[in-house]
Amino acid sequence: MDTATYVRQGRAADALRPLRLTPHFLPAADGSCLIEIGNTKVICTASIDDKLPPWLRGQDQGWITAEYGMLPASTASRMRREAAAGKQSGRTQEIQRLIGRALRAAVDLHLLGERQVVIDCDVLQADGGTRTASITGAYVALCLALRKLTDAGMLVQNPLREAVAAISVGVVAGVPLLDLDYPEDANCDSDINLVMAASGNIIEIQGTAEGATFSPDTLNQLIALAQKGIGELILAQQQALQAPNKHKHPLGATKYP
Amino acid sequence: MDTATYVRQGRAADALRPLRLTPHFLPAADGSCLIEIGNTKVICTASIDDKLPPWLRGQDQGWITAEYGMLPASTASRMRREAAAGKQSGRTQEIQRLIGRALRAAVDLHLLGERQVVIDCDVLQADGGTRTASITGAYVALCLALRKLTDAGMLVQNPLREAVAAISVGVVAGVPLLDLDYPEDANCDSDINLVMAASGNIIEIQGTAEGATFSPDTLNQLIALAQKGIGELILAQQQALQAPNKHKHPLGATKYP
Amino acid sequence: MDTATYVRQGRAADALRPLRLTPHFLPAADGSCLIEIGNTKVICTASIDDKLPPWLRGQDQGWITAEYGMLPASTASRMRREAAAGKQSGRTQEIQRLIGRALRAAVDLHLLGERQVVIDCDVLQADGGTRTASITGAYVALCLALRKLTDAGMLVQNPLREAVAAISVGVVAGVPLLDLDYPEDANCDSDINLVMAASGNIIEIQGTAEGATFSPDTLNQLIALAQKGIGELILAQQQALQAPNKHKHPLGATKYP
Amino acid sequence: MDTATYVRQGRAADALRPLRLTPHFLPAADGSCLIEIGNTKVICTASIDDKLPPWLRGQDQGWITAEYGMLPASTASRMRREAAAGKQSGRTQEIQRLIGRALRAAVDLHLLGERQVVIDCDVLQADGGTRTASITGAYVALCLALRKLTDAGMLVQNPLREAVAAISVGVVAGVPLLDLDYPEDANCDSDINLVMAASGNIIEIQGTAEGATFSPDTLNQLIALAQKGIGELILAQQQALQAPNKHKHPLGATKYP
Amino acid sequence: MDTATYVRQGRAADALRPLRLTPHFLPAADGSCLIEIGNTKVICTASIDDKLPPWLRGQDQGWITAEYGMLPASTASRMRREAAAGKQSGRTQEIQRLIGRALRAAVDLHLLGERQVVIDCDVLQADGGTRTASITGAYVALCLALRKLTDAGMLVQNPLREAVAAISVGVVAGVPLLDLDYPEDANCDSDINLVMAASGNIIEIQGTAEGATFSPDTLNQLIALAQKGIGELILAQQQALQAPNKHKHPLGATKYP
Amino acid sequence: MDTATYVRQGRAADALRPLRLTPHFLPAADGSCLIEIGNTKVICTASIDDKLPPWLRGQDQGWITAEYGMLPASTASRMRREAAAGKQSGRTQEIQRLIGRALRAAVDLHLLGERQVVIDCDVLQADGGTRTASITGAYVALCLALRKLTDAGMLVQNPLREAVAAISVGVVAGVPLLDLDYPEDANCDSDINLVMAASGNIIEIQGTAEGATFSPDTLNQLIALAQKGIGELILAQQQALQAPNKHKHPLGATKYP
Repeated sequence: MDTATYVRQGRAADALRPLRLTPHFLPAADGSCLIEIGNTKVICTASIDDKLPPWLRGQDQGWITAEYGMLPASTASRMRREAAAGKQSGRTQEIQRLIGRALRAAVDLHLLGERQVVIDCDVLQADGGTRTASITGAYVALCLALRKLTDAGMLVQNPLREAVAAISVGVVAGVPLLDLDYPEDANCDSDINLVMAASGNIIEIQGTAEGATFSPDTLNQLIALAQKGIGELILAQQQALQAPNKHKHPLGATKYP
Repeated sequence: MDTATYVRQGRAADALRPLRLTPHFLPAADGSCLIEIGNTKVICTASIDDKLPPWLRGQDQGWITAEYGMLPASTASRMRREAAAGKQSGRTQEIQRLIGRALRAAVDLHLLGERQVVIDCDVLQADGGTRTASITGAYVALCLALRKLTDAGMLVQNPLREAVAAISVGVVAGVPLLDLDYPEDANCDSDINLVMAASGNIIEIQGTAEGATFSPDTLNQLIALAQKGIGELILAQQQALQAPNKHKHPLGATKYP
Repeated sequence: MDTATYVRQGRAADALRPLRLTPHFLPAADGSCLIEIGNTKVICTASIDDKLPPWLRGQDQGWITAEYGMLPASTASRMRREAAAGKQSGRTQEIQRLIGRALRAAVDLHLLGERQVVIDCDVLQADGGTRTASITGAYVALCLALRKLTDAGMLVQNPLREAVAAISVGVVAGVPLLDLDYPEDANCDSDINLVMAASGNIIEIQGTAEGATFSPDTLNQLIALAQKGIGELILAQQQALQAPNKHKHPLGATKYP
Repeated sequence: MDTATYVRQGRAADALRPLRLTPHFLPAADGSCLIEIGNTKVICTASIDDKLPPWLRGQDQGWITAEYGMLPASTASRMRREAAAGKQSGRTQEIQRLIGRALRAAVDLHLLGERQVVIDCDVLQADGGTRTASITGAYVALCLALRKLTDAGMLVQNPLREAVAAISVGVVAGVPLLDLDYPEDANCDSDINLVMAASGNIIEIQGTAEGATFSPDTLNQLIALAQKGIGELILAQQQALQAPNKHKHPLGATKYP
Repeated sequence: MDTATYVRQGRAADALRPLRLTPHFLPAADGSCLIEIGNTKVICTASIDDKLPPWLRGQDQGWITAEYGMLPASTASRMRREAAAGKQSGRTQEIQRLIGRALRAAVDLHLLGERQVVIDCDVLQADGGTRTASITGAYVALCLALRKLTDAGMLVQNPLREAVAAISVGVVAGVPLLDLDYPEDANCDSDINLVMAASGNIIEIQGTAEGATFSPDTLNQLIALAQKGIGELILAQQQALQAPNKHKHPLGATKYP
Repeated sequence: MDTATYVRQGRAADALRPLRLTPHFLPAADGSCLIEIGNTKVICTASIDDKLPPWLRGQDQGWITAEYGMLPASTASRMRREAAAGKQSGRTQEIQRLIGRALRAAVDLHLLGERQVVIDCDVLQADGGTRTASITGAYVALCLALRKLTDAGMLVQNPLREAVAAISVGVVAGVPLLDLDYPEDANCDSDINLVMAASGNIIEIQGTAEGATFSPDTLNQLIALAQKGIGELILAQQQALQAPNKHKHPLGATKYP
């Protein structure tokens, strides 16, 4: 790792890609947020369900679960639709389990009460980092759904514990980088996804040596990079949550007849 | 049907809902268009596949097929994700078969050559008329994908035959109406989906007596209504197809850090 | 459509194929009817289930649902058995949804009471028009099952509203035809399935331009043809319903040892 | 087993139920036969497929495989349709494997050549003994399909080795009986299905002690009963195979308009 | 069958392969037994479930059901894992139905009370006779699970009726043989699996003419062979059931650091 | 994390559970190893397949893939068999993807040549750490399979790069622990699975804050613990690989008749 050979175009090694959060993107959902980070774009929604799954009832607590999907045209060459294939891939299941764990860490499930929040993350466009973008955007959708419950007087106390966001870090050609895009991800030596809380503590770490094993020292370098990025993401979440809800046709651009 | 009792709020009985077509909505696809008609919003994409399915090879013609899906949060109460359920519902299959037939009618499959165009229609928000909006928007996505082939010199002759659009009509409390929204659709006596060509001829008609049977005379009234709406839709398609492709971040609204 | 070129062999353009209805064909069912129209042969049965599906309970009404299948050897080249394939095709689901809607239109579901009638249509031999034959035959099976309920004193009032039958019409080489057989269906310009009531009103219309779009005028011509055919089908249904129930070995022909 | 307490109504302990074989029942199939034995009725067809499954190609032999299904209304209370359930039950798979093995025993697969015969057995009405009736009827269908190949000059030598039929035997309340109907089957101590060749030799034996274990002596008594029944079945098969093929509307009974 | 040509290596025609039963092999199960017969090795477990399946409740009886699986590496060339394939093969279902029936015959289900015993038979290594070894080993596991219930005072009376074991017999190159290994099974003329009780009576017989039909006389010869083997198996079961439960690391061999 | 309250019974906080590796456990496989660590017991096998999956052919490299399963009776209360459920759970897929990645890191896929090694890890008994035990044991099975290829002269050069093993670490009631058993895992604050190479570098890290988030400092403490354990595991692997292959009935214990 002595000789760094990769020089990133257009942004610093420790810089996030351009980020936009559009809260209230899908008005029909209890909470929603479109997250765009670089060319990765994910619609995140949170739906409140008054019924818990049978195995969770009567335990004086709520639950948060997540589902993840990709539009077939979200990738450079069209992917097969999972509903048509008849099952979700192992990758999809792995990601939705990760999103669910991450958001449950943000919430006191007992204060949530006997209800379930279902998070849906649907990728419109994929350019690396879809699972971490999903978590960051879903946190905003979740907060909006909980605010709706609070406004309706259905929550005695706010169940949020602390803000949660996620980002990828990795080593490409010897250089530690924050927020890998797809070409970087496809060529990295190692790739780590970190879910962190506002405190800088770790909620989830998933790292893989794709091409070369990595030392604990390198890991520490990458974690420091991630902490910087997470701080910026959490700031953006807070701003998005303070934005007023206009939700008048937030989607399209030009209007016809 | 003598006594009309339903008075539509905010638009005339023969008026479409507000319509917006956003071409190039998903830049990664070969062709794409977001269609918004009232609160119904559908992303339509067209992906070119150089390989035909095995049963179509060697017949000197191409193929157009379609898939349809709904985001779980697109409806007022969250629907189950079909990929998680492990199969597409009968309704989904019926709709995607309809979309495929409608668009194949717009194209000379022999001129298309030995390639397949896969249409994906993904509903972001559903407020009635998702299948007809899908067809109208998918026609734009298809044209953009064919234009890409033409621009690349891969098509000798334009395979488009004539413009295709679709709309619903129905009788609500005795009143014939154009372009039903969800509450109207849920309370109608009869509901007809019409796919039509620019010529005013019929490509597909699917009508159901939900509450009361209907006479051939009523059917003719409804077809006339549909012809008016189809004319307006085809005009909007033409305008959208002439719009320049800016496709710089067409999705979100506010930009953070 | 000026120059008609197709001359039908053996029957007039507005003639049905030879029709036979054999009520009580499967004595174990609550109601049953074998319908043979030309070489198309379908066993239709109606089974009464005292339990409604969960989502329909407690609404003071009954339900009618339908399933459709084809024997693998019913077609010229053997089809794959859907039970072996592990799922029903989109076509099958589309047809069984159509049959269900058609028969629900024939019945007052509130008078039916909190019970379900399950219609099964199993095609023994397919030569065009299996979905319309299914509806016409299933109406007879349904009436027999309801008669059984009435005879047992389980229905206070007859829930039948009006007779329902179905037929296909289409344009082949410019000639409007009633009741297409398989070769005609495979070569038609347009193909319309009509479900109609005894009153001549429309319950369901499903029309597709297979080869050429069609005008509203042509549609009206085809509807008139269908009305003629529906009248003859409903007459045959009435005769079949008056036939005595002998049901002694109605199936086979020669008897051994 | 000293004291026999069951007295069969209407037929002797060693008598088959009334039997009818209707060859050419489904003209579209390469070979077909309706078998009716008592109230059990099964349509058996044989379809010739020129292509072998991949794992059997190039071995200079053919194959015979079988599929089995029941119409939902074939039983006293309607069964669930397996195509709708999305899979074949263990019982179905067990039966179709049995039918396939039985018929392969009747044929020299090398003389059959590189082709496959697919047997379909579809139960119209079930009153005990559907798997044995399927085998007996399928043998007739198979012979008719092979005759078609022979007539077309596609078989150099007849691949039939010897006739095959099947029957159930069992002990009910201490009495050994031939050809159990459903009530006998449901109350028997032991139930044995025997597939036998014209020679009286055994091709397949499947016996279960439902209520009480049985001794080898009892087994021998039951085999003798079966041999008598098999003889009669094979005679009926021969007669059916000699019947002329009229196949003009063999299905229904009364004719309308 | 006059001229016997096959001479078995290493054991007599009427000899079992070397047999080992290891009770308490998997301490976490309510009852367990590893059975090794030649190179065939099967782990059999019995798990007590206090809840019956819904369709068996309230009938004052219990139930025994079985599942069967093979490790992918249990066969000479690796088999596909059924969980990955998404369904159990017909063969698997046939075998687990057989195991269930066999063990239910050993037990008075009314004395068992309203509980279910689930038998699992997982094949570690397959060299012929896995289904019969499963039954023989599962009987030991079942007895141990019932003993656990008895010891806990949860059974008033022992529900065991009589010991049950199973073995295969067959004719190879004209020679009747006991306990076929895989090469013998693959080359036999006929193959019969027999489940028998300690009394020498038959519980289940499943015989197939693989290459040549067989006469009732041959069948009787094979049954006599099986009776000899079953006697030895039941003796081994009794010895295993008397062995003390050490269950300290019964699995491996050498111990590391 | 100041006040440690958990005191481990029977072993030190940095001690592995008792470990046994039994190579050649399943002689039919190309390579096999039973790993027992505490009460967790997993059979690991490696099967060589000369055919690559289609998408990997012609790239001058091999592949290693893995499948994972649990015997239904491996857990304290019986789990549902995945083959019967019809699909592998998300957890199963996540684990088998992890095992595959871990072992691919141990091997130079180009030197492996155009062949695939399929790893199967089947859990006989589960008491925490089944996924890490699977990796550690599978490495031994993989080495044995590669040795077989080398011995047969099918590999020009040894494709092994370095030894790979895996272990879990976690914080329980404030105390960092090596190699959690099931009760510890169920009550931990955080749980990290580490796959490491002989060099002490990281191949894969998967950590989750189950109850409380954890700081990077705690993470470093846990990694140090894991490094100690990995060293011991790799030593045991080396010893197991040097053990002679006796493989005469390595499974059972007592021998009957």
